[in-house]
Amino acid sequence: VDPLVERAESVAIELGVKRWTASVEDVFHDTNIDAVIIATPTNTHAELIQRAARYKKHIFVEKPLTQDVQEADEAIQTIHENQVSCQVGFMRRFDPAYQEAKRRILAGDIGEPIYFKAISRDPGSPPPAFIKHSGGIFLDMSIHDYDMARYLMGAEVTSVAAHGKILVNSFMEEFNDVDQAITYLTFSTGAAGDVEGSRNAHYGYDIRAEVVGTEGTLFIGSLQHHDVHILNRKGCTHDLIPAFPERFKDAFYLEMVHFIDCLRKGEKPSVTEVDGKKALEIAVATKCAFETGKSVTLSDRVKV
Amino acid sequence: VDPLVERAESVAIELGVKRWTASVEDVFHDTNIDAVIIATPTNTHAELIQRAARYKKHIFVEKPLTQDVQEADEAIQTIHENQVSCQVGFMRRFDPAYQEAKRRILAGDIGEPIYFKAISRDPGSPPPAFIKHSGGIFLDMSIHDYDMARYLMGAEVTSVAAHGKILVNSFMEEFNDVDQAITYLTFSTGAAGDVEGSRNAHYGYDIRAEVVGTEGTLFIGSLQHHDVHILNRKGCTHDLIPAFPERFKDAFYLEMVHFIDCLRKGEKPSVTEVDGKKALEIAVATKCAFETGKSVTLSDRVKV
Amino acid sequence: VDPLVERAESVAIELGVKRWTASVEDVFHDTNIDAVIIATPTNTHAELIQRAARYKKHIFVEKPLTQDVQEADEAIQTIHENQVSCQVGFMRRFDPAYQEAKRRILAGDIGEPIYFKAISRDPGSPPPAFIKHSGGIFLDMSIHDYDMARYLMGAEVTSVAAHGKILVNSFMEEFNDVDQAITYLTFSTGAAGDVEGSRNAHYGYDIRAEVVGTEGTLFIGSLQHHDVHILNRKGCTHDLIPAFPERFKDAFYLEMVHFIDCLRKGEKPSVTEVDGKKALEIAVATKCAFETGKSVTLSDRVKV
Amino acid sequence: VDPLVERAESVAIELGVKRWTASVEDVFHDTNIDAVIIATPTNTHAELIQRAARYKKHIFVEKPLTQDVQEADEAIQTIHENQVSCQVGFMRRFDPAYQEAKRRILAGDIGEPIYFKAISRDPGSPPPAFIKHSGGIFLDMSIHDYDMARYLMGAEVTSVAAHGKILVNSFMEEFNDVDQAITYLTFSTGAAGDVEGSRNAHYGYDIRAEVVGTEGTLFIGSLQHHDVHILNRKGCTHDLIPAFPERFKDAFYLEMVHFIDCLRKGEKPSVTEVDGKKALEIAVATKCAFETGKSVTLSDRVKV
Repeated sequence: VDPLVERAESVAIELGVKRWTASVEDVFHDTNIDAVIIATPTNTHAELIQRAARYKKHIFVEKPLTQDVQEADEAIQTIHENQVSCQVGFMRRFDPAYQEAKRRILAGDIGEPIYFKAISRDPGSPPPAFIKHSGGIFLDMSIHDYDMARYLMGAEVTSVAAHGKILVNSFMEEFNDVDQAITYLTFSTGAAGDVEGSRNAHYGYDIRAEVVGTEGTLFIGSLQHHDVHILNRKGCTHDLIPAFPERFKDAFYLEMVHFIDCLRKGEKPSVTEVDGKKALEIAVATKCAFETGKSVTLSDRVKV
Repeated sequence: VDPLVERAESVAIELGVKRWTASVEDVFHDTNIDAVIIATPTNTHAELIQRAARYKKHIFVEKPLTQDVQEADEAIQTIHENQVSCQVGFMRRFDPAYQEAKRRILAGDIGEPIYFKAISRDPGSPPPAFIKHSGGIFLDMSIHDYDMARYLMGAEVTSVAAHGKILVNSFMEEFNDVDQAITYLTFSTGAAGDVEGSRNAHYGYDIRAEVVGTEGTLFIGSLQHHDVHILNRKGCTHDLIPAFPERFKDAFYLEMVHFIDCLRKGEKPSVTEVDGKKALEIAVATKCAFETGKSVTLSDRVKV
Repeated sequence: VDPLVERAESVAIELGVKRWTASVEDVFHDTNIDAVIIATPTNTHAELIQRAARYKKHIFVEKPLTQDVQEADEAIQTIHENQVSCQVGFMRRFDPAYQEAKRRILAGDIGEPIYFKAISRDPGSPPPAFIKHSGGIFLDMSIHDYDMARYLMGAEVTSVAAHGKILVNSFMEEFNDVDQAITYLTFSTGAAGDVEGSRNAHYGYDIRAEVVGTEGTLFIGSLQHHDVHILNRKGCTHDLIPAFPERFKDAFYLEMVHFIDCLRKGEKPSVTEVDGKKALEIAVATKCAFETGKSVTLSDRVKV
Repeated sequence: VDPLVERAESVAIELGVKRWTASVEDVFHDTNIDAVIIATPTNTHAELIQRAARYKKHIFVEKPLTQDVQEADEAIQTIHENQVSCQVGFMRRFDPAYQEAKRRILAGDIGEPIYFKAISRDPGSPPPAFIKHSGGIFLDMSIHDYDMARYLMGAEVTSVAAHGKILVNSFMEEFNDVDQAITYLTFSTGAAGDVEGSRNAHYGYDIRAEVVGTEGTLFIGSLQHHDVHILNRKGCTHDLIPAFPERFKDAFYLEMVHFIDCLRKGEKPSVTEVDGKKALEIAVATKCAFETGKSVTLSDRVKV
């Protein structure tokens, strides 16, 4: 489905899909269609979720779930009322490294998690047109790490503080956004953590996480792309992961396999609209903390 | 196709394939079938290639091409006479690391290749029943490295010498086979190299290669499986690649994509029956060198 | 020199030094002695520096320079009036990795530094008796990273914010200290950075730094101790650096070589009382930022 | 001591040594001198060892012990008759990585060693004048790996085979030497191994070893020099160890500490004239194997 029907057609042909349309209504009215994937701009998510749910379509929606927490609450209500499934596109949960990390933590290999540390660096900023509607670095970028924080720490975030600056992309000033930021988090278990977000990793796509535990510590995050090292008089060099499609190729595939698999088996996806809302709450609170220069307690403002 | 039709059926269902049979004739006679994959024991390759080619089926055949060089010559002749395509299952050529290595070598990043070094270690020996008909470590295992030697060095092997021993699997004595071997190679360009083959890497599946060049040197071969490190008082640990399906998952997929893609475009595969024969010749010569304790010159015995 | 003369004696014998004493006066009055090393508790630094300088002894003093900024100012004045040399024990400046990093930055290899990131994790907390007089995690521990921030970024710190928690060592509550903390820094060049300090790295001594630049980025910090990897069914393991004497063995030696070398050549050490004071100012400001929950601007409170 | 007294003088001044001479007799006759270090060309070792031993001087001698096995036998006899200590300069035994490897093997961490693999690559060839008198790649270079083979495998070498070629340095033809060689070894325990020697590692000094055991496998050999990684659009680069003084700085120091320590305590060094002879025997046998193209059994030719 694409309002530009030619674009819908060309993608359909590329993917070997037999039907395409410019109208989302065609999909909603088609009783042969069980589920929809919502990969539109964030400001359209809320309405599309509402309509899809009322037409009893199961939903896969890209992150963030909605633009704000109120929209998220309304979406969750409609999803529940219509008893459809909803999976949110936090694909990192399906990355083999993050899954193995979660497995090891659950197996007790690091004891109790006490500190979470994450770095997400993009190789450059998206264009101003994107940044303008992105919701800012915390909602657009660090939200992935907030979800990972909840996933790996097995705990809810209870407070946030944030700092950041424009280091390279001066155009962001207009949108009250920054290209480098750090979030400090505390968790319901008493643990703490920090999350760095950056648009300035000109060297590649740099995604790392650490979980310090009482009995062991866990690192995720190779920066290496091809498994080839070149050695010469200048040293030993390997290439770096250029961007997210290379880093999360398997994860994007596996999250879709999981979605379809859950539909077939009548099971609930492992990452739902509730996870979407919780990560959104952290991001919204962080944005508030950044703007006010004060810590924000989530329990004060969050009523699930 | 499987002589045990129940096995054919269960695999067909697993893969969503609509037809299955116990008789290879059904495939050969079906004019809707353009190509066949021969993944049977090595001693059946020659006959199946002959028949497939005569029925004008394109052929994907697992390595080694045939049992011996005479069979290979006959297969090549029939393939050529019937103008069908043939791709040999040297999947490493489609592994992203080996492809990147080849690309870098062709780009001149290491100057002229002067030394090739490879290690292939299996986590354990196949059972005696397999070893018995395997042709021995050089034909069954090191043949992958001989193909990589030709591919990465951009040269033909001109002589071989070999040494080896049984270090763990005493049952191999019965089959005149060894579980650890080294091949010394010289190349048409004046370069040299060595290839270690081992069945004794109880720690995992360990596949590495190096190409020393006049201007740079290139290493391939991470042993790491998941991108997760666990740190505790005992040190920092990552898991290891357990076996070939994990190491060459992408390569197995990509070689099949290439085969089909070539058929669609009417192009010749990048690794053909001729490559299959040349690797076989090296393996046969190496086996001879090992048994006689003398270097064997390939140009003496090889007439393509 | 040790007030317990037996301890002075035993160390002197161990080191092959021919004289020892319980009285620092003996050293000050000895005109054959050119320089002193002050490695006493921090609260004695100021007085010892004052006296050493008045006796015209050159000074090597362990970090932090003094307990507070006023003491530092007075020490600097006396050092200058008496025209003696003073080197502060920021040994990381002499670590080969940090020196190479500085060399590469000065060579322009990473362009302009825009972000500094450091992690310093101790394998465990010192005992309560030490923590009580340590000045807290920012003055005792992160001060090394503040010095590295100035050194590697080639800039002064202009503001700080800080967060932290007790995650393991509940006894610290009594001393208003924490065992995990993060400092957010801005620099005179417009750059920013963060510094993590932790007493909870039960896995070893973990010291890392990154400098993100406009043209390249630089990582320092191997966690590996011996250059030995053990591979078995559990994975591939290397040991970890257990504590600071192993990590900074060369640096401790080289800082002393530099001190003596400067004295011999009549040159000023590369890290002086002024660097000592500046790192102290950052640490004091960070402690204040942590206690108030607000950013602290250094230019407001610092008059050099 | 140096026949060129000016050279002796300048080194003495550099090292703060108070006496120097052009005559080795001055040393032998000086009863205050307990021990000598023989770091002269290999063809002078035998005579100097003989004389030093007769003057009751303890001896540290660079590898190889002597030029041939007969000289070695005579040296050993004289050393024993005069009851002096002799340590041979196999400094790798004092390298912290090799020592840790040995410790882990003795602790049973890899079970029984079954395969030894070593690579020693120099960044380039020494000049023709050196190669001429070097004894060739097996005696000059691979001898270090033969000693490590004995040390790490805890076994004697029982047979050798060898292959090699000139790949870069055509001048070596004149001296019947090669710049790339491989030795295949079998051990008294039934284990096997291979040793690569090369003069063609233009990228740096590349020393690696592996011991495959029945329960675990052990790798030694980082190629990294400074602990600094530079990341940019070209990838992630670290520098490489340029030459042996950087790689074995600690080992050269520690072997001398051990020598002096043993003298002080009246203990036998951990690596003696007997180890020197055994490594020499392997090297001589390998040279013979290379020249004849046949395996050489050491038990046939060696009577200790």
